[in-house]
Amino acid sequence: RRTGYPEVVYCKGKRIEQAEAIMVGMRDAGLPVLGTRASRELAERIARRFPEAVYEEEGATLTIGSLTDPDEREGLIAVVAAGTSDRPIACEALRTAEFFGSRTLFINDVGVAGIHRLFARLEEIRQARVVITVAGMEGALASVVAGLVAVPVIAVPTSVGYGASFGGLSALLGMLSACAPGISVVNIDNGFGAGYQANLINRQKVKHG
Amino acid sequence: RRTGYPEVVYCKGKRIEQAEAIMVGMRDAGLPVLGTRASRELAERIARRFPEAVYEEEGATLTIGSLTDPDEREGLIAVVAAGTSDRPIACEALRTAEFFGSRTLFINDVGVAGIHRLFARLEEIRQARVVITVAGMEGALASVVAGLVAVPVIAVPTSVGYGASFGGLSALLGMLSACAPGISVVNIDNGFGAGYQANLINRQKVKHG
Amino acid sequence: RRTGYPEVVYCKGKRIEQAEAIMVGMRDAGLPVLGTRASRELAERIARRFPEAVYEEEGATLTIGSLTDPDEREGLIAVVAAGTSDRPIACEALRTAEFFGSRTLFINDVGVAGIHRLFARLEEIRQARVVITVAGMEGALASVVAGLVAVPVIAVPTSVGYGASFGGLSALLGMLSACAPGISVVNIDNGFGAGYQANLINRQKVKHG
Amino acid sequence: RRTGYPEVVYCKGKRIEQAEAIMVGMRDAGLPVLGTRASRELAERIARRFPEAVYEEEGATLTIGSLTDPDEREGLIAVVAAGTSDRPIACEALRTAEFFGSRTLFINDVGVAGIHRLFARLEEIRQARVVITVAGMEGALASVVAGLVAVPVIAVPTSVGYGASFGGLSALLGMLSACAPGISVVNIDNGFGAGYQANLINRQKVKHG
Amino acid sequence: RRTGYPEVVYCKGKRIEQAEAIMVGMRDAGLPVLGTRASRELAERIARRFPEAVYEEEGATLTIGSLTDPDEREGLIAVVAAGTSDRPIACEALRTAEFFGSRTLFINDVGVAGIHRLFARLEEIRQARVVITVAGMEGALASVVAGLVAVPVIAVPTSVGYGASFGGLSALLGMLSACAPGISVVNIDNGFGAGYQANLINRQKVKHG
Amino acid sequence: RRTGYPEVVYCKGKRIEQAEAIMVGMRDAGLPVLGTRASRELAERIARRFPEAVYEEEGATLTIGSLTDPDEREGLIAVVAAGTSDRPIACEALRTAEFFGSRTLFINDVGVAGIHRLFARLEEIRQARVVITVAGMEGALASVVAGLVAVPVIAVPTSVGYGASFGGLSALLGMLSACAPGISVVNIDNGFGAGYQANLINRQKVKHG
Amino acid sequence: RRTGYPEVVYCKGKRIEQAEAIMVGMRDAGLPVLGTRASRELAERIARRFPEAVYEEEGATLTIGSLTDPDEREGLIAVVAAGTSDRPIACEALRTAEFFGSRTLFINDVGVAGIHRLFARLEEIRQARVVITVAGMEGALASVVAGLVAVPVIAVPTSVGYGASFGGLSALLGMLSACAPGISVVNIDNGFGAGYQANLINRQKVKHG
Amino acid sequence: RRTGYPEVVYCKGKRIEQAEAIMVGMRDAGLPVLGTRASRELAERIARRFPEAVYEEEGATLTIGSLTDPDEREGLIAVVAAGTSDRPIACEALRTAEFFGSRTLFINDVGVAGIHRLFARLEEIRQARVVITVAGMEGALASVVAGLVAVPVIAVPTSVGYGASFGGLSALLGMLSACAPGISVVNIDNGFGAGYQANLINRQKVKHG
Ligand SMILES: Nc1ncnc2c1ncn2[C@@H]1O[C@H](COP(=O)(O)O)[C@@H](O)[C@H]1O
Ligand SMILES: Nc1ncnc2c1ncn2[C@@H]1O[C@H](COP(=O)(O)O)[C@@H](O)[C@H]1O
Ligand SMILES: Nc1ncnc2c1ncn2[C@@H]1O[C@H](COP(=O)(O)O)[C@@H](O)[C@H]1O
Ligand SMILES: Nc1ncnc2c1ncn2[C@@H]1O[C@H](COP(=O)(O)O)[C@@H](O)[C@H]1O
Ligand SMILES: [Mg+2]
Ligand SMILES: [Mg+2]
Ligand SMILES: [Mg+2]
Ligand SMILES: [Mg+2]
Ligand SMILES: [Mg+2]
Ligand SMILES: [Mg+2]
Ligand SMILES: [Mg+2]
Ligand SMILES: [Mg+2]
Repeated sequence: RRTGYPEVVYCKGKRIEQAEAIMVGMRDAGLPVLGTRASRELAERIARRFPEAVYEEEGATLTIGSLTDPDEREGLIAVVAAGTSDRPIACEALRTAEFFGSRTLFINDVGVAGIHRLFARLEEIRQARVVITVAGMEGALASVVAGLVAVPVIAVPTSVGYGASFGGLSALLGMLSACAPGISVVNIDNGFGAGYQANLINRQKVKHG
Repeated sequence: RRTGYPEVVYCKGKRIEQAEAIMVGMRDAGLPVLGTRASRELAERIARRFPEAVYEEEGATLTIGSLTDPDEREGLIAVVAAGTSDRPIACEALRTAEFFGSRTLFINDVGVAGIHRLFARLEEIRQARVVITVAGMEGALASVVAGLVAVPVIAVPTSVGYGASFGGLSALLGMLSACAPGISVVNIDNGFGAGYQANLINRQKVKHG
Repeated sequence: RRTGYPEVVYCKGKRIEQAEAIMVGMRDAGLPVLGTRASRELAERIARRFPEAVYEEEGATLTIGSLTDPDEREGLIAVVAAGTSDRPIACEALRTAEFFGSRTLFINDVGVAGIHRLFARLEEIRQARVVITVAGMEGALASVVAGLVAVPVIAVPTSVGYGASFGGLSALLGMLSACAPGISVVNIDNGFGAGYQANLINRQKVKHG
Repeated sequence: RRTGYPEVVYCKGKRIEQAEAIMVGMRDAGLPVLGTRASRELAERIARRFPEAVYEEEGATLTIGSLTDPDEREGLIAVVAAGTSDRPIACEALRTAEFFGSRTLFINDVGVAGIHRLFARLEEIRQARVVITVAGMEGALASVVAGLVAVPVIAVPTSVGYGASFGGLSALLGMLSACAPGISVVNIDNGFGAGYQANLINRQKVKHG
Repeated sequence: RRTGYPEVVYCKGKRIEQAEAIMVGMRDAGLPVLGTRASRELAERIARRFPEAVYEEEGATLTIGSLTDPDEREGLIAVVAAGTSDRPIACEALRTAEFFGSRTLFINDVGVAGIHRLFARLEEIRQARVVITVAGMEGALASVVAGLVAVPVIAVPTSVGYGASFGGLSALLGMLSACAPGISVVNIDNGFGAGYQANLINRQKVKHG
Repeated sequence: RRTGYPEVVYCKGKRIEQAEAIMVGMRDAGLPVLGTRASRELAERIARRFPEAVYEEEGATLTIGSLTDPDEREGLIAVVAAGTSDRPIACEALRTAEFFGSRTLFINDVGVAGIHRLFARLEEIRQARVVITVAGMEGALASVVAGLVAVPVIAVPTSVGYGASFGGLSALLGMLSACAPGISVVNIDNGFGAGYQANLINRQKVKHG
Repeated sequence: RRTGYPEVVYCKGKRIEQAEAIMVGMRDAGLPVLGTRASRELAERIARRFPEAVYEEEGATLTIGSLTDPDEREGLIAVVAAGTSDRPIACEALRTAEFFGSRTLFINDVGVAGIHRLFARLEEIRQARVVITVAGMEGALASVVAGLVAVPVIAVPTSVGYGASFGGLSALLGMLSACAPGISVVNIDNGFGAGYQANLINRQKVKHG
Repeated sequence: RRTGYPEVVYCKGKRIEQAEAIMVGMRDAGLPVLGTRASRELAERIARRFPEAVYEEEGATLTIGSLTDPDEREGLIAVVAAGTSDRPIACEALRTAEFFGSRTLFINDVGVAGIHRLFARLEEIRQARVVITVAGMEGALASVVAGLVAVPVIAVPTSVGYGASFGGLSALLGMLSACAPGISVVNIDNGFGAGYQANLINRQKVKHG
């Protein structure tokens, strides 16, 4: 594996036996495994075989083992989400970042319509080395946060919203057009991608530092 | 005129003599006149005939007289703009609102990437009966402001930006999807429409109060 | 709460226990509660606990108490809808405006293809301080109504229609491009947003008048 | 020529000598000629050779002769346009319909924002066998007119407008989604197509009647 | 009714009792009734009450009586459809045109990929006073047919196809951009609109001829 | 060069000296050179240095030498274009195919609105081993031709047209959705790509035959 | 049949008896039959009648007989697919190419994110006369492969992906914009079209060689 | 300044005196200054006043001083660009990263159509702590590079290309949909944003390491 990281199994769009077979194969080869968009049914099958497997339903992640021991995770990544409906994507980001070796902090329900809630958590957020913002609708959270922190922000647009949100398009375009520098963007609903990239950034220090 | 207001001349897309003729006709009929998207050349022609005409180049508005005496304008409308490039649209909104009888306040350069600048002006903004927000790119200003004031917000997306801003589309979709209630939106770059609507709202009090 | 208004619960996309818990929490804290996009099942659960709760199925709104006593509502808001299929959105707007303290008038089935029906109701509509127009397909109702009344029009595009209506896009673009001034627009199917904004405008008089 | 009609020369996108050569060739072959989107320069060249050529600058049409003698034109086509900026397209439609043998009536500046102006002309419009509506922005004129007349309406969306008008897209989608039956639509700015189709419909009577 | 025609009931998006009540009301008032997008279940309910009702499942039309006696229908409308999947829309057009008083001819499965099949039916098609073309995917049928007949063509894009057909968008844009004159277009899948417009054109002769 | 072919210089978007330098460099290295989208000015510079250079203005191609001797070109490629405005793209395809070693045939002005013109040339077209169709607007030519020949069709949508043609989008979507099999599509206005691919297909025979 | 090939039955969107009837009719007429997008249920019905029928579930193809004897297939077509989710479309392409007489090679799971896997199979791929690339998401596989082989590449974008993949649009646009020459593109998910076109190209040799 | 960095002047869309005034003001306040999208004329004006100013025409950046001494820049950022036309954006990224304190490496002309050129530079690229990929058209470079390196990739889509590239949209969607993890994306043509974000990531080490 050239990039130094194990592959991750994107379970959606695979038949349940297919997904199971791949995860089992990797585990039997001694690798830690991360499955995303995993169904409860898949989790149950895997649990029968690997009691150490952990399923987190909200983010639909299923892990067997981890790349780093939880105690040895280093560097804090803050995941800042606008509202309740953004939680599943935020959770996917959190579990991904942890799996690859980062510590995480979850700040929820701090959408910009009630900006005092965001300010109330600002000192916590400023402890992080990377901030992931998760928001649908107009996605304004990314701009506001990036203006308040001095570290890289990874923005995840979500498909939360209706009408002119066009399945996440409004948030995506907004985040790409953001007036604050220090933001880069991943695909709509791609919590995994954000967690992975944030961990890469965070782990720089470890490798080069 | 059923709606109780004089017509406004949208000068763009009209030949200069056409625009001049319409404005002269209205003025000769004793009406105050507002021309939008007026060129300097048109302004000079009109000025020769009506020395009382006022041309504001930044917003490209040209007025001859006004619906209300400046001293008698009532009720404050705040026009809050994100950045320097949004100024022309903000000015169009300001002059329109004034022409129809509102007092105005202009708060510029308070984009959400530096949100402390917005907070520094918040008490002033809260004096207004209606707030117009003018912003391009991700248009996040509308959501943030609407969450901070208790009066109606009229949001004007602008075509400022490039790439994924798609000529104002990102700001438009963002403002329509805004997570804060109390926002309604006008067309991209439509400072006139925002000023007109804000004045209508502001003048409610006068008519019904 | 900075804006002086209680929060509203958007029930769609929340699990039923989640929505219930939030509404119960607010009610127990002594607040009046408005839930939008509420299912019948949620309404039944809430009703068991709060017999004073009112569910209006057509608009899918669920209220427990109200911000103002129905007798004390002031200022008329007219909700003018094009056709039968626009009724759910119109009802959401009506119930929202009432909840926050406005009186309302509902004018239905006055789409512009049979414009005499609209004219037949014009005097009634002209009693209102704010007019909400609700229409899908080409959304022409907003332009026509705004040309006939002297008060602010809040336009709600709906996703009614098929083919080139593109889920409300044709109505949305039409309303934003409307040739009549005095219109501002909310998101597709956002009856709540229109009712909220119309109430804000209407209540101006009360606060400042 | 299978369809019984001479070809029409679309001059835009052709070099001036190319356009001239085609028109001269057709005329020398004894045919009446209609050129659309013709420049003044082309018109002058043609006029030198064919003094009977007629150039109408507003609609940019250039004709040499006509399919029918003006006195023998039959059946009235009404071209109803929303505003001043729609005039060029309306004129293209008028001249095309006349060239192919129809009588025409031009009703201008009757956009739906001031619907009383449309009503003032309604009896005239009702004399027509076919009505062409020409409008940009939200294109609501087509729906309103189709609801008021009992004959086919051909709707021409124009690229007039800015922002959310998206170069005629809002008018196009609106007209296609129109809630009134009896409308069919041609391409954005295609005055020629509307005039041609309206004439075909009008001339039915002559051929079959 | 200003336009001289009874209203038509668009049954989709109405609850079954709603649709039934409207149809019954109209019939009881002595009017012939046309319901489009009618379900089998609605048809059965109506049939119990009005044995003369006719349901055509393929086009989902439900009629009770007719505006003209079948024997007295006049003037032929040809409905030319590209493929099997376009049949439901073609049938909606056919039944609508007949209901309002036109005779019809149905030519199916003559898509342009096998153009000899179209040529084999050309003489039949040329008997018609109006031609309706029904096609999805690239919608080329409209251009080809319009080049072969001397009467107006009403083009109906359908949502048949996948991928780049984008739910009828490719056919819609193609028909609007068609290089042959004499085409006007209705909404995607709007067989009713095409049948109605074609009948209006066809009936011209009767009224004015 | 892995693919066995020399590189081609896309001159647009390069400064004239840049383009010149690249072409000179290649030629000096003994390679035949093909420049596309070349300006007359560039052609003149190159001609001063390489008198054997050939500039074809209509297609804006500039060649110095050729991969195969004109006499040794083999296998016929037919380039079939809808109208005069499609000629530049057709010429780019023709010159590209010839440069790489194919014989070509150019059939112009056979748009589907006058399909007899296409049929008149069908026997010629059927001599080709590959057919390139070049058309804007609705792009129907590709479907019709593919239904008439037994060889691969490469379809080039062009940006010819206005309004709903959306700069070639209508033709592109139409060609991709085409109901006839045996079509594959290149980018809008990409005459070069079509000529290159058609030559690859044609030359198969030579390499493997 | 002008094009020398039997028709293929696109089973989706046809009722099962309809599809069955067509296939039976063709088979009874002595033709080999290929059905695409065939359901298991249809396959079972056909199998009862024609035991020689072959159903391949992954690609949803159903064949009865074949145009050429498997032993007589000539010329290799490589189908190169990016990932597991692209397999169904790849299989449709494989079975189509075989049915019409080509030999095939299937290379799976060689997406560009792990480009060494593609290189490991490059020599095999280079045996082919035509290469079909099947990929969703960004569709980069087409560009990379076309840069590595000297034969025509047919690119099939798939609807695999989410968010900004927009149902295959990102892959489609990417493949059309590809920076490598020698690529032409078929519709999103159109494995059939790619297999058919690749076979046409491959079979050139046989006919002309 | 909350984020610890000086502001950058985006010169486009500002009048030349405006841009000059801002830059002079910042410099007089003792700050290093970076202007992007600066014209040659602006550069000359600034140079007259500040001889230490440096203008790089290709990337249109204008700097007066620098945040860090060139000798003290730390950590390598590789900017990898697909082709000549992407150079201006790549240069904007390079100069931005340097200005804020990073060392840089520029790898040009390594588009995926000739992937051996990319492989030839791979060892160099692998020295970097962050890689910026700059590409238009299909933007495949980002996916390929991210699959080959173990550090974060910042992808910049460019507006290079025509037709289906839609001004950078194809590259943007492709990069967002990329099948390789470890990529995040900035706005179309936003070299500044990429350079800024890459520097933030790179400097992590310094601050936290
Ligand atoms: N800047 C503007 N943007 C949008 N609408 C405008 C603007 N200025 C004026 N209008 C509207 O355009 C109408 C006049 O249009 P016209 O008759 O073309 O001059 C006025 O009544 C206003 O409603
Ligand atoms: N203004 C116009 N818009 C659209 N189509 C036109 C227009 N004028 C002429 N045409 C059509 O274009 C054809 C001529 O195209 P061309 O051969 O390019 O001159 C005519 O036969 C008409 O069908
Ligand atoms: N999977 C497919 N995708 C696109 N076109 C197909 C497919 N399968 C068959 N076709 C085409 O559809 C035609 C049959 O369409 P139909 O008459 O509706 O069965 C065939 O002649 C093929 O050209
Ligand atoms: N080329 C660029 N593209 C996008 N954003 C930029 C660029 N250059 C500067 N900026 C941002 O624009 C801000 C300055 O904008 P302004 O106040 O309009 O000059 C800076 O703080 C940067 O965040
Ligand atoms: Mg920051
Ligand atoms: Mg508020
Ligand atoms: Mg009004
Ligand atoms: Mg009518
Ligand atoms: Mg015709
Ligand atoms: Mg063929
Ligand atoms: Mg190649
Ligand atoms: Mg990597």
